[in-house]
Amino acid sequence: MNKIEPRTLKGFRDFLPKEARKRQYVISTLRKVFESYGFEPLETPTLEYEDILLGKYGEEGDKLMYRFEDNGQRKVALRYDQTVPLARVVAQYQNELPFPFKRYQVQNVWRADNTQRGRFREFLQCDIDTIASSSPNADAEVIACAASALRALGFEKFRFYVNDRAVFKDISKVAIGAIDKLKKLGEDRVVEELVTRGEYDSSEKAQEVLLEIKRSTPTPWLTTVINEAIAMGVMEEQIAFTPTLARGLDYYNSTIIELEIEGYAAGSVGGGGRYDDLIGMFGNNSIPAVGFAFGFDRLLEAMEENNLFDKMKNIVVLVVIASPESASLSFDICSALRYKNVNAECYLDSTASPEKQFKYAEKKEIPYVVVPISETEVELRMKNQAGEIVKKTVMRSDLPDEIK
Amino acid sequence: MNKIEPRTLKGFRDFLPKEARKRQYVISTLRKVFESYGFEPLETPTLEYEDILLGKYGEEGDKLMYRFEDNGQRKVALRYDQTVPLARVVAQYQNELPFPFKRYQVQNVWRADNTQRGRFREFLQCDIDTIASSSPNADAEVIACAASALRALGFEKFRFYVNDRAVFKDISKVAIGAIDKLKKLGEDRVVEELVTRGEYDSSEKAQEVLLEIKRSTPTPWLTTVINEAIAMGVMEEQIAFTPTLARGLDYYNSTIIELEIEGYAAGSVGGGGRYDDLIGMFGNNSIPAVGFAFGFDRLLEAMEENNLFDKMKNIVVLVVIASPESASLSFDICSALRYKNVNAECYLDSTASPEKQFKYAEKKEIPYVVVPISETEVELRMKNQAGEIVKKTVMRSDLPDEIK
Repeated sequence: MNKIEPRTLKGFRDFLPKEARKRQYVISTLRKVFESYGFEPLETPTLEYEDILLGKYGEEGDKLMYRFEDNGQRKVALRYDQTVPLARVVAQYQNELPFPFKRYQVQNVWRADNTQRGRFREFLQCDIDTIASSSPNADAEVIACAASALRALGFEKFRFYVNDRAVFKDISKVAIGAIDKLKKLGEDRVVEELVTRGEYDSSEKAQEVLLEIKRSTPTPWLTTVINEAIAMGVMEEQIAFTPTLARGLDYYNSTIIELEIEGYAAGSVGGGGRYDDLIGMFGNNSIPAVGFAFGFDRLLEAMEENNLFDKMKNIVVLVVIASPESASLSFDICSALRYKNVNAECYLDSTASPEKQFKYAEKKEIPYVVVPISETEVELRMKNQAGEIVKKTVMRSDLPDEIK
Repeated sequence: MNKIEPRTLKGFRDFLPKEARKRQYVISTLRKVFESYGFEPLETPTLEYEDILLGKYGEEGDKLMYRFEDNGQRKVALRYDQTVPLARVVAQYQNELPFPFKRYQVQNVWRADNTQRGRFREFLQCDIDTIASSSPNADAEVIACAASALRALGFEKFRFYVNDRAVFKDISKVAIGAIDKLKKLGEDRVVEELVTRGEYDSSEKAQEVLLEIKRSTPTPWLTTVINEAIAMGVMEEQIAFTPTLARGLDYYNSTIIELEIEGYAAGSVGGGGRYDDLIGMFGNNSIPAVGFAFGFDRLLEAMEENNLFDKMKNIVVLVVIASPESASLSFDICSALRYKNVNAECYLDSTASPEKQFKYAEKKEIPYVVVPISETEVELRMKNQAGEIVKKTVMRSDLPDEIK
């Protein structure tokens, strides 16, 4: 066999244990919080019939979609987002699902996008959506649930910027697109763009429109959403009416939400809103819907920057095998630790020197090493804050408590 | 837009909440146990360069693989198993990984296989593998870890059938293939096949060979593996030397393992073995390896048949909103319950009748319903064993304990 260079495709990533562990920690925290609010898990297939997805994401989407013919000459496509598959599921199983249908979904999507600036071609989406409720409580709840998720991950300072698309009712899509860049470009350049694009005759007119938007007060709908979110536990300083918030996606028709985390400058860590005309697409009917999605890769970056992975428990013990004859004793100590919910392993080669076993623990970043002394006593080795190894003789029966 | 029929591809599945919840429960239980033994998570991309996968699974594999050209004219393929990507990872990151490298992987794979008999084209694989250890402890450990996983899921009666491929050292691959069907076809038909295929001149000779295999005793290697597995906590009746066990896969060269669960007749629920000549494929070197994989779909079926999902906790509460004015009180009760790790939700339409809210709880199989009576008291409604609804007045502060 010719030697084949081990490599991955551009925009696709391997997650080695250290990274994979962090991802799993965030995913399982999110799942728990989503479920605590009554959102239920949904999984849809990686591949769909092409016609299910095609034309749903605009021209750009069709271009970036991974599409091909399968062995049976079926035209298929890889999941591009989780909203269109949700719309399909709602149409396909309408008699089985409870309504309002509150579901969460944490699956990969694929987009053959430019890979610059931390964009990937395979990435995880984390969505919560409530289908078939037109109550403002539903909008408030996705915000409250996202806030709880952030708190569970350890974030303290974050803010949901909210607006109502109704604010833009007299403004063209093109102008909304320009206004959406206000934060990024600043007022002068947005005004310039509004004029260049022919939306307004003069800078004065454009400036006036912008000022009017800035001065607008929340709609009664949005006031209710904000108040209910606060009643559900979101703190007042965590939610802010932002009349110039527009958000790019066409399909929002009412509430729009954007999440920022203090100190994380790379941009919004999540967003969502109400989109009442999308979910019914496969039944040609109108089904109200509201949702929120975390940007998973950015959320992980923000966790990293805030050192929030430090509180991830990594209670792992390496139990040294002192000699081949005493392997069973070490296996026993491991089993007893696992029984007490402490992750424990032995080095696999019973003939390896203790030094070799210590090195393995070091490389694997295992914080505790146990060296059996007798049937009843062990030496517990760990690092102190200065990074020096400290040793302590401990009764076997006290080991789980000593470690915890 | 033309109406598009909502449908899924043959062999691909939607998992609605009830099913998705069970899957998540099994996955998270497996993850916990795998990690308790020091196996670490690994994730690899869904798409690989075609040449990484092609030719690694025999002709059949190349035929069943999902392959296509991406938008950049790269030849790519969908993950077909988790072992070849693992081999790639081991070659690609050899300086970063700890060795022995103990990893687990729980990801989907895709095979354009016949969809009859519960076979799917997208299905989950759950693998644990230890790379770069030639110690029998490694073989014992994957068995012990799998046994712990089964116990954690609630299984009591299961057995690992083990053998050493060395038993077959004088026997051709074709003959091993025939012997592997012994359990399925019975002795007579296997003998017949051995003769028909021209492996032996007469039935007598074939019978003699089969008898000899049946009479063989475990190799010293396998004896060690079995003894160490028992020292690690596997019970004696859970592991059985089976000299006629051959297993289909070519690449096993030593220990082979097959798992059966008592009462689950559809076949083996998992398997594995030692494969020392596979993982080095991308470096053209030899790296010892041993692994075990659960058949996830079968494992779920076996759980279902043994009613093991009954012990899955589904502590969920619906807090009724008695009137639009008292919505905040209900939100409050929800928050307090969540704070005590009870999943709780309100019906989203504050103007809905209590009956409508009860129906929602029923449809969603929510076991507890709370109706606020005053600021301090609530009515707790649940079903008794006869399926009748029983009601109880409870102080708000006692609610979490009452429910747990």
